[in-house]
Amino acid sequence: MDAQKRAGNHSDAASPSSNCKPELGSRAAFEWKVRVYYEDTDLGGVVYHANYLRFMERARTEWLRSLGFEQDMLRSQHSLQFVVIGAALKFHRPARFNDELQVSVSVTDIGRASLAMHQDVHVIGAEHMHVCSGEVCAACIDAYTFKPRSLPREILMELAK
Amino acid sequence: MDAQKRAGNHSDAASPSSNCKPELGSRAAFEWKVRVYYEDTDLGGVVYHANYLRFMERARTEWLRSLGFEQDMLRSQHSLQFVVIGAALKFHRPARFNDELQVSVSVTDIGRASLAMHQDVHVIGAEHMHVCSGEVCAACIDAYTFKPRSLPREILMELAK
Amino acid sequence: MDAQKRAGNHSDAASPSSNCKPELGSRAAFEWKVRVYYEDTDLGGVVYHANYLRFMERARTEWLRSLGFEQDMLRSQHSLQFVVIGAALKFHRPARFNDELQVSVSVTDIGRASLAMHQDVHVIGAEHMHVCSGEVCAACIDAYTFKPRSLPREILMELAK
Amino acid sequence: MDAQKRAGNHSDAASPSSNCKPELGSRAAFEWKVRVYYEDTDLGGVVYHANYLRFMERARTEWLRSLGFEQDMLRSQHSLQFVVIGAALKFHRPARFNDELQVSVSVTDIGRASLAMHQDVHVIGAEHMHVCSGEVCAACIDAYTFKPRSLPREILMELAK
Repeated sequence: MDAQKRAGNHSDAASPSSNCKPELGSRAAFEWKVRVYYEDTDLGGVVYHANYLRFMERARTEWLRSLGFEQDMLRSQHSLQFVVIGAALKFHRPARFNDELQVSVSVTDIGRASLAMHQDVHVIGAEHMHVCSGEVCAACIDAYTFKPRSLPREILMELAK
Repeated sequence: MDAQKRAGNHSDAASPSSNCKPELGSRAAFEWKVRVYYEDTDLGGVVYHANYLRFMERARTEWLRSLGFEQDMLRSQHSLQFVVIGAALKFHRPARFNDELQVSVSVTDIGRASLAMHQDVHVIGAEHMHVCSGEVCAACIDAYTFKPRSLPREILMELAK
Repeated sequence: MDAQKRAGNHSDAASPSSNCKPELGSRAAFEWKVRVYYEDTDLGGVVYHANYLRFMERARTEWLRSLGFEQDMLRSQHSLQFVVIGAALKFHRPARFNDELQVSVSVTDIGRASLAMHQDVHVIGAEHMHVCSGEVCAACIDAYTFKPRSLPREILMELAK
Repeated sequence: MDAQKRAGNHSDAASPSSNCKPELGSRAAFEWKVRVYYEDTDLGGVVYHANYLRFMERARTEWLRSLGFEQDMLRSQHSLQFVVIGAALKFHRPARFNDELQVSVSVTDIGRASLAMHQDVHVIGAEHMHVCSGEVCAACIDAYTFKPRSLPREILMELAK
């Protein structure tokens, strides 16, 4: 990956992480709104816990779209797909039917073939109640062989902004 | 499809349907058990209506398996896939968390490239409560071109038993 | 229900339906956009059939909201809930990941305690491809006893506009 | 909670953890089988990542049932409900349509009002492929006030076996 190679020069020797990691820009977190429908709730009257992973993925999809990357094009033109390889979730409070949620995406680390992101879910409203947070790690793979693939240079360049 | 061609002889002329329809055997309905989990319920405390379509498909998958047909093999070896093209559902009573359901499959009509099935969902228990019924039509298509495909002869032979 | 009682006068005698049915206005169909995410697809690469029932309910929820009715308020303040009691779906063509769908809601019949609606799903784009249509019947029930309840007068008045 | 109070005697002083934690028995992991259906897959041809949380909850439900605890009874008779408050998942390899999965449950820690569990998902078969693992923390709450509740003594006694 060119961006990584370019970073691997001698003057970076004192900073071990700098020669193996692409740069991470200082963008504000991306935010996406999600409405809670009947389908998202369970008999407890609140959002079923597994559905936060769906909400978080919707936000990541819209974040990539906002950067100019359509995942169907990445797949059809570059055989490239992102897959979740790890997710650590904390469920702070319950969200309910009809709540409008704000789901954030912030990149926390960029690997050769993976991205680590922090994601928060808040209920939109006066209290801005924090309902869920997650650390999600997505790997970039070949959509057909499932082998790891370097993150595309275009995505790295966007992330460095 | 050979089975259909063979059936199309002159002696069948008086019976218009017999030369375009494979035979339907007299099997009893296939039955499959499904447990209701948290994920299946909504805030009303009952099974979310769309999930009955999922339960009905589980039963159809297990019914095909019971006849000796694995859908992953049909797909990988014969590029063949079943897709639902129509479903008419009636929701009679609600099923609840922890209920054990019995989902039936009965073939009601066999077309050249489609199957019509009646499916019932009951709560297993003293009252055998009838919660949902559906008429589901599944078409046989090529898994890659999505074009209609004749039902495989092996399946027709099983259905005629 | 007052709206229905008022309609039951003598001058309507020649029109049997008019004294048992509230009026249906001439609103254009309500439209709601739904994006297809990974969670909505299956291994066939297309939207899993049961998910159209979820999309249709999202549109109905937003349609009620557009008329001024929040279902969480109907539930908490009036113990009133809508439940789907019937749905007849036709799946015309497959929608795919990343498609933006337009889901419509048109009331086709108003009963004492139920609403019949026609819903269409199109892919937004040059071809406006028609992917799915459905006739959905929702009953108005008490959220706790599950017994039928007359449609609220406020909703009937909105539907008559 | 009585079990905890009884444990808090002086002879335990040298073992700080013993007076605040109920005992954890030496049961083998509970195992539950889950079949992968169309509904569980996504366009990548594999199980959609969020669905592993559903599979893990099915296994926990069946594990509680195997110990003699039905969650609908806990809810209706004791106003008691378990909710997931944390989950850390690693997705090692993809599971596919038609795979039969084995989902395990092992209690790793018992708190006053919570349970920590390790759960593994393997594909049943010659290779016993490890597809997913998770650390799941469930809290015991009042089903109506959502306030924390001590784990019922009966459950603690079962867990100590």
